[in-house]
Amino acid sequence: MIVHQHPFLAPCRFARLVLAEHAIEAELVVEPFWDARPQFVAVNPALKLPMAYDGERDPLCGAEVLMEYVDERYGEARPAHRLMPSDPFQRAEVRRLVYWFTQKFEEEVAGPLVTERILKIEMPSKRGGGAPDSAALRIARQNVVAHFHYLGSLAIGRKWIAGDSFTFADLAAAAALSVVDYLGEAPWGADPAVKAWYQKLKSRPSFRPLLSDKARLVAPSPHYADLDF
Amino acid sequence: MIVHQHPFLAPCRFARLVLAEHAIEAELVVEPFWDARPQFVAVNPALKLPMAYDGERDPLCGAEVLMEYVDERYGEARPAHRLMPSDPFQRAEVRRLVYWFTQKFEEEVAGPLVTERILKIEMPSKRGGGAPDSAALRIARQNVVAHFHYLGSLAIGRKWIAGDSFTFADLAAAAALSVVDYLGEAPWGADPAVKAWYQKLKSRPSFRPLLSDKARLVAPSPHYADLDF
Repeated sequence: MIVHQHPFLAPCRFARLVLAEHAIEAELVVEPFWDARPQFVAVNPALKLPMAYDGERDPLCGAEVLMEYVDERYGEARPAHRLMPSDPFQRAEVRRLVYWFTQKFEEEVAGPLVTERILKIEMPSKRGGGAPDSAALRIARQNVVAHFHYLGSLAIGRKWIAGDSFTFADLAAAAALSVVDYLGEAPWGADPAVKAWYQKLKSRPSFRPLLSDKARLVAPSPHYADLDF
Repeated sequence: MIVHQHPFLAPCRFARLVLAEHAIEAELVVEPFWDARPQFVAVNPALKLPMAYDGERDPLCGAEVLMEYVDERYGEARPAHRLMPSDPFQRAEVRRLVYWFTQKFEEEVAGPLVTERILKIEMPSKRGGGAPDSAALRIARQNVVAHFHYLGSLAIGRKWIAGDSFTFADLAAAAALSVVDYLGEAPWGADPAVKAWYQKLKSRPSFRPLLSDKARLVAPSPHYADLDF
């Protein structure tokens, strides 16, 4: 597949994990969505990233759309390790948690942190670039603690966050945490269950490429790539 | 099913249409989400509406989760009229458009209009109630025109908005337009293709209950329930 994305947007990282877990090769293309390239807008008027091409057909826009597509099209190749359970209520729980991370956590935590600390440095000033908004950062830093406790409550009561099996929800959550951790904004001390769960995710081969991503002007937190942090 | 909802939130109307199209009986319970009832928060910490119970299992939170569940669980009962196509790229297009209406249109148009003009009258002032924010209304009224043109471009090039068949995307879009139309905020003159498409939707039996909804203190626009408007 050809995947238009930005390496520090959590939904794009989620998509990369989904593809890697299915052993689907992806050519990654950085899409500076703030430039709203006419060819990009024409096929994807919501400017949603990731946007993936699988062959000649129309692009798949957004991580949730891509997730369902990959499961339907390629999930059968890994029946014992399928990332979407078969029970209808468990499927609903996986989707609830995926949306939690691609939408709610993104809006309240990862999106503001990444926008203020990474994207605004890359964007030209006429496209929204500039100095970080300290009020937005403060609110995101407050929100992250409540989110850690919620994730902790899932991690402690269940084997994986959506239940007994490893699912798309674990990948969406880990992708979101990984950008927060890159920026040194993850309160690991707040909940040991979250840390233990994240360590399992971080050790998966699918995760490795994410750990070598580097933002142009922002260095990763010292333990970012450590499997034993 | 028992469906916790608010009659003027577009994603809740989408859910009601989905259930009616599948001939699933629903007991509707109005959930004043702004009160954040402890029992509601406990099972649905994102406070997402609609929230539906199908039997004794955990609730299904959010219109997108419910849509997938209904299709997987009850879609086979109507093979010739299934609202999710079988081609993987067409499924992706249906989901892209459903999210367009439950998320983007909701954020930019329907959500602000309904919040400012209906919900704020119902909410106590300590929960966000009060006078409408005229700046928010102005922005939503600007946004609705561009959205009409986009929907028009779909309606004119395709038989139904996601392609050749009637799908969940038509229901999500029509649900969103119906609240805007109730408030007299739909610029029907902007695009005749949108009007012709909406007329087809409005004539479906599943739509009828929506047309008799009344907000406590806001009357519907004069043509709201007219099939020939």
